[in-house]
Amino acid sequence: MSNIFGRIFTLTSFGESHGVAIGGVIDGCPSNIEIDLDFVQNELNRRRPGRYLTAATRNEEDKVEFLSGIFEGRTTGVPIAFIIRNNDAKSKDYELLKNTFRPSHADFTYCMKYGIRDYRGGGRSSARETAVRVAAGAIAKQILNQIGISITAYTSQIGHISIIEHSDKTNLNHIGENEVFCPDQDIAEKMVDYLKELKQEGDTVGGIVSCTIRGVPIAWGEPVFDKLHARLGQAMLSIPAAHGFDYGAGFNGVGLKGSELNDSIVSDGGKVKTITNHSGGIQGGISNGEDIYFRVLFKPIPTISQKQNTVDIHGNNVELEVSGRHDTCVIPRVIPVVEAMAALTLVDFYLLNNKK
Amino acid sequence: MSNIFGRIFTLTSFGESHGVAIGGVIDGCPSNIEIDLDFVQNELNRRRPGRYLTAATRNEEDKVEFLSGIFEGRTTGVPIAFIIRNNDAKSKDYELLKNTFRPSHADFTYCMKYGIRDYRGGGRSSARETAVRVAAGAIAKQILNQIGISITAYTSQIGHISIIEHSDKTNLNHIGENEVFCPDQDIAEKMVDYLKELKQEGDTVGGIVSCTIRGVPIAWGEPVFDKLHARLGQAMLSIPAAHGFDYGAGFNGVGLKGSELNDSIVSDGGKVKTITNHSGGIQGGISNGEDIYFRVLFKPIPTISQKQNTVDIHGNNVELEVSGRHDTCVIPRVIPVVEAMAALTLVDFYLLNNKK
Amino acid sequence: MSNIFGRIFTLTSFGESHGVAIGGVIDGCPSNIEIDLDFVQNELNRRRPGRYLTAATRNEEDKVEFLSGIFEGRTTGVPIAFIIRNNDAKSKDYELLKNTFRPSHADFTYCMKYGIRDYRGGGRSSARETAVRVAAGAIAKQILNQIGISITAYTSQIGHISIIEHSDKTNLNHIGENEVFCPDQDIAEKMVDYLKELKQEGDTVGGIVSCTIRGVPIAWGEPVFDKLHARLGQAMLSIPAAHGFDYGAGFNGVGLKGSELNDSIVSDGGKVKTITNHSGGIQGGISNGEDIYFRVLFKPIPTISQKQNTVDIHGNNVELEVSGRHDTCVIPRVIPVVEAMAALTLVDFYLLNNKK
Amino acid sequence: MSNIFGRIFTLTSFGESHGVAIGGVIDGCPSNIEIDLDFVQNELNRRRPGRYLTAATRNEEDKVEFLSGIFEGRTTGVPIAFIIRNNDAKSKDYELLKNTFRPSHADFTYCMKYGIRDYRGGGRSSARETAVRVAAGAIAKQILNQIGISITAYTSQIGHISIIEHSDKTNLNHIGENEVFCPDQDIAEKMVDYLKELKQEGDTVGGIVSCTIRGVPIAWGEPVFDKLHARLGQAMLSIPAAHGFDYGAGFNGVGLKGSELNDSIVSDGGKVKTITNHSGGIQGGISNGEDIYFRVLFKPIPTISQKQNTVDIHGNNVELEVSGRHDTCVIPRVIPVVEAMAALTLVDFYLLNNKK
Repeated sequence: MSNIFGRIFTLTSFGESHGVAIGGVIDGCPSNIEIDLDFVQNELNRRRPGRYLTAATRNEEDKVEFLSGIFEGRTTGVPIAFIIRNNDAKSKDYELLKNTFRPSHADFTYCMKYGIRDYRGGGRSSARETAVRVAAGAIAKQILNQIGISITAYTSQIGHISIIEHSDKTNLNHIGENEVFCPDQDIAEKMVDYLKELKQEGDTVGGIVSCTIRGVPIAWGEPVFDKLHARLGQAMLSIPAAHGFDYGAGFNGVGLKGSELNDSIVSDGGKVKTITNHSGGIQGGISNGEDIYFRVLFKPIPTISQKQNTVDIHGNNVELEVSGRHDTCVIPRVIPVVEAMAALTLVDFYLLNNKK
Repeated sequence: MSNIFGRIFTLTSFGESHGVAIGGVIDGCPSNIEIDLDFVQNELNRRRPGRYLTAATRNEEDKVEFLSGIFEGRTTGVPIAFIIRNNDAKSKDYELLKNTFRPSHADFTYCMKYGIRDYRGGGRSSARETAVRVAAGAIAKQILNQIGISITAYTSQIGHISIIEHSDKTNLNHIGENEVFCPDQDIAEKMVDYLKELKQEGDTVGGIVSCTIRGVPIAWGEPVFDKLHARLGQAMLSIPAAHGFDYGAGFNGVGLKGSELNDSIVSDGGKVKTITNHSGGIQGGISNGEDIYFRVLFKPIPTISQKQNTVDIHGNNVELEVSGRHDTCVIPRVIPVVEAMAALTLVDFYLLNNKK
Repeated sequence: MSNIFGRIFTLTSFGESHGVAIGGVIDGCPSNIEIDLDFVQNELNRRRPGRYLTAATRNEEDKVEFLSGIFEGRTTGVPIAFIIRNNDAKSKDYELLKNTFRPSHADFTYCMKYGIRDYRGGGRSSARETAVRVAAGAIAKQILNQIGISITAYTSQIGHISIIEHSDKTNLNHIGENEVFCPDQDIAEKMVDYLKELKQEGDTVGGIVSCTIRGVPIAWGEPVFDKLHARLGQAMLSIPAAHGFDYGAGFNGVGLKGSELNDSIVSDGGKVKTITNHSGGIQGGISNGEDIYFRVLFKPIPTISQKQNTVDIHGNNVELEVSGRHDTCVIPRVIPVVEAMAALTLVDFYLLNNKK
Repeated sequence: MSNIFGRIFTLTSFGESHGVAIGGVIDGCPSNIEIDLDFVQNELNRRRPGRYLTAATRNEEDKVEFLSGIFEGRTTGVPIAFIIRNNDAKSKDYELLKNTFRPSHADFTYCMKYGIRDYRGGGRSSARETAVRVAAGAIAKQILNQIGISITAYTSQIGHISIIEHSDKTNLNHIGENEVFCPDQDIAEKMVDYLKELKQEGDTVGGIVSCTIRGVPIAWGEPVFDKLHARLGQAMLSIPAAHGFDYGAGFNGVGLKGSELNDSIVSDGGKVKTITNHSGGIQGGISNGEDIYFRVLFKPIPTISQKQNTVDIHGNNVELEVSGRHDTCVIPRVIPVVEAMAALTLVDFYLLNNKK
């Protein structure tokens, strides 16, 4: 269960870290949408390991192959299937982990749930699965782009180092100019230094990814259980290592009063808008036409180069020391994943809203 | 759309604040479960307005009537339907709001989405809808109780006043001893004083509700898109006024390293457990047998007794001043709603896991 | 499970034959649709027992009460809930059946599936449940009528007595002129005589209901698993006592060749249509603009006034003789149920097709 | 939409006749099931064209490649994905059909629905799509076999030539001994002769496939909308060219009375069973432990070698004459498809029933 995302525009995802291939099937994509396959590949390249000093060195090419649903450059309304073969799968690296549960990984819970697991590289619980989300998200993004919507995720905090959101020093246009996709170049430098230091220590750290969505029309989102922010929350929290989500003023605004947080409404030449946007572009679970913004908290990657106490599959207490190549932080590689999940969520609400 | 929650154990919810009745239908409830209907009524009473100094004075009796699905005190496996009639509906109070959009309410977005709205008391967007969740949650809780699971929500922060979680001063057994369901009696007093003060000002404030779940067995939750915490997140964020969710160490732990947050695993007389529980009882989206705990952020109630700028349905800029009875804070009335949504989410995963 | 029908326009149904009430919740109904509540009541009256010589004499008023979702005569886009209270529930009649499984009824299978059952009058398995479908279908019909679609079901066969479809003697405008909703008045008389005869014998009989749908635009229906006729088939086969479904030429055309059954296409003043309509208005699972027509087979009602062999709940072989009031044939009471299920199915495809 | 089948055990299907590949993803498969991949390939071979005198001569190898979900010969509980590449795609054969709608094909309705279509060989509407169902069904069959369930489909009628069901002359063990999978060897010969004759004429014919399922335990199937026979009906009617479905006594028993069709229940040494089985193993939508049997009607393949009237995509009336290789009848190639859809439907009900 649970490998299908969405209600109208659905993504069925499959594949393990060290199996034959990972891939996905999009059902419910409207027909006659022009699709740029190079854009899909570019999005995938954004999350590839090996590009950054902070990343693991496994070098998977992540070449996507489309199998169906696109004819002469356009969607036909039938399922769009794609696969990404696993080429660089060094399964022998993982022999050590065959019988041992890594602390704060999914090894133990998968094993208990299914009574069997593909232990090679985390199998289905590996973050490699997120490449499928990015590829499908790249289709969703093109649909959204064609109606004027842009989605930009960026790093707002790594460990204790954070930017001041919406300040003079932040500029979303320049997030690509540093290795950590941070909109404040000075803070970005500090983040990179900190990550280098941690890499040295063999330790890892978490952080916060912020995301801003521009151009969503009024009326997307469904009331009650499928509020726009509730589904965005589920989408974000489904990303490996995500531990928190807020939108609008969020946890940082908890001390403020109603009189401070309410967004006054004004009619400006016939266009109704709010003066402030503490609601994050969503009221009653439905978009109000203002920018949507939210944050996602990610915990540190649990694989560290330090000795840890754990148990093996026979229930013996053992010490675990993992060598090899591993990331120091899910950021920045998770940035395109956040954007992809936002795009998949939004396209689904777009199509749902057409049927209200 | 979106008035159905769950996949195996589903709740279909209906009803507006000032219509004939609100109610719900539970489908997929296992048969032969003993149900105590008084417990359902008691849970409803916990969220009634009028009990606390901080609450609005509308006094709705919220008497639940069961229509089907329970025979001779037991569930029969067929749908359980119930209704709660709206008795105390003073629709004339709301005549003023017929043509005006309240800032940071759902008035504007509903109107734009549907082109029509039941303006009386917020209609479907009213928090009154949560009574249905509480009634259905009371059925779910009884199923969970019978397999040893308890769910306890409590207030951990109101405005800038917060408890220190898991400290010597907090005790979940005593949360019923103060008006704000706070496990620290000293902090509780400060919270009550603060709410009285705000009531005086005609202002409102938000807060944080924490929740601890004990007794969930290993293996609940479905990987990838329906991770246990992702669905809990959706459930919580679907509650009116919810603006954030985290679990385990959460946003407060963002500065900590992997070596500090990883939960070492130990085998203790055959029972595998973790030494710390920064993961909040969930790893890879699946319960690991430890306590599950999470937090939900609520924004201030947007209805305040101060003049606000807004527009009317004709697009004119107007000033709005709302008189009448309104809560100062969703806390403590939202406490049983948080528990109910947790119970509904968990029962669904319980049944799903039986089919793995 | 399985008490929810549809994907966009959903009906959640509840209620047992002799419980407090039966009812339903429609979610996903478009907003701003004008609804005539008298029409709903009239549709319910069409399936009431006690109107025809052939029917049981239980006289339930079936008064529908709407609880939500309709405001000032229009749908608001939120759930439409309604209930029908069970007034005439003579539970004592059924005491005899408490411990005995009626042959070819659902008594045995429900009991084995759930380990408990509401034995009064069949409980959830009673055909009384279909009143909910008729009420919801009456909402669906009004949506369809407003876009020019009409649905007409009629009796084409009772026992061995059948009409010749599409002949000079059949006229769908006159089906209301006889007690069995048959479009051939001479055949209708024979059917009525036959039913009287059977009533005398204490026996029952099955039959075939045909249905014609006019005005469905091209393009409704979803390919592969949710073909229009596949979902119509599920809808019809879900009606109690339904045992078969075909559409277009159907089983009667099994001897014909491709050259005889193919529907040639012709362009007539710019309008593309088929010369014949053996496909029943559906090609590849998608409507082609021609009339849709199908047939539903119903078995005899299993409750007969003759001695039958069966077992009791303790596994003893017993003889059962049921006295009391029972129908001789599901026809004509099932006619509005067939129309209702067709309407619910079509509205769902209409909304699904809004974004293909 | 509609390329996903099932609720717990789901198949997502993709692929066009002349695209890169067809394939499927199974989600919700229980873990730790031993899977024989050769069995899957054998099932696929059963539906290959080119084996029978009656079939088209396109020789596609239909080699299935599994990409995920099976580890060391066992299912792991994660999605099982597989693809079948399209090798023998002679797209040029179909250039003629690029601009012309074949009568009684899906060409016209797809084109109108989507505004674009992959015209090569029917694209997504091609029966080639059923290979995916057969591959997935072969996984489902193995799960069912392991709990003692067998599914056998066979030809009971071709054109006007039919067997007498359940007679002395029919034997399900010998259906593999003739080219048309008919359990009566004499009738089989007549069917083959008739198909040869039709091939000569360039015409096509339909028929009826019957199916018997043995070993289904009591209690599978969900009441009301998802009755076992309603979902079997949807499954069967979703197969290309299917036009009708009945179960138990079916349309042939329409003249019989309740006293003739009721299945008396008897307790035989503690085991409750029915003396006759006119109900086809299902009562109230739930299996009663007896054999399940049903029939599926298939119309003639619409592609014939005779001149037909139709229109082109510009709306001009034209004559169409299709040459090339085409089957004379969907039977016998559709036999494994019927079995596969039955298996997929049953596995889903099996898992659903695990928690009633």
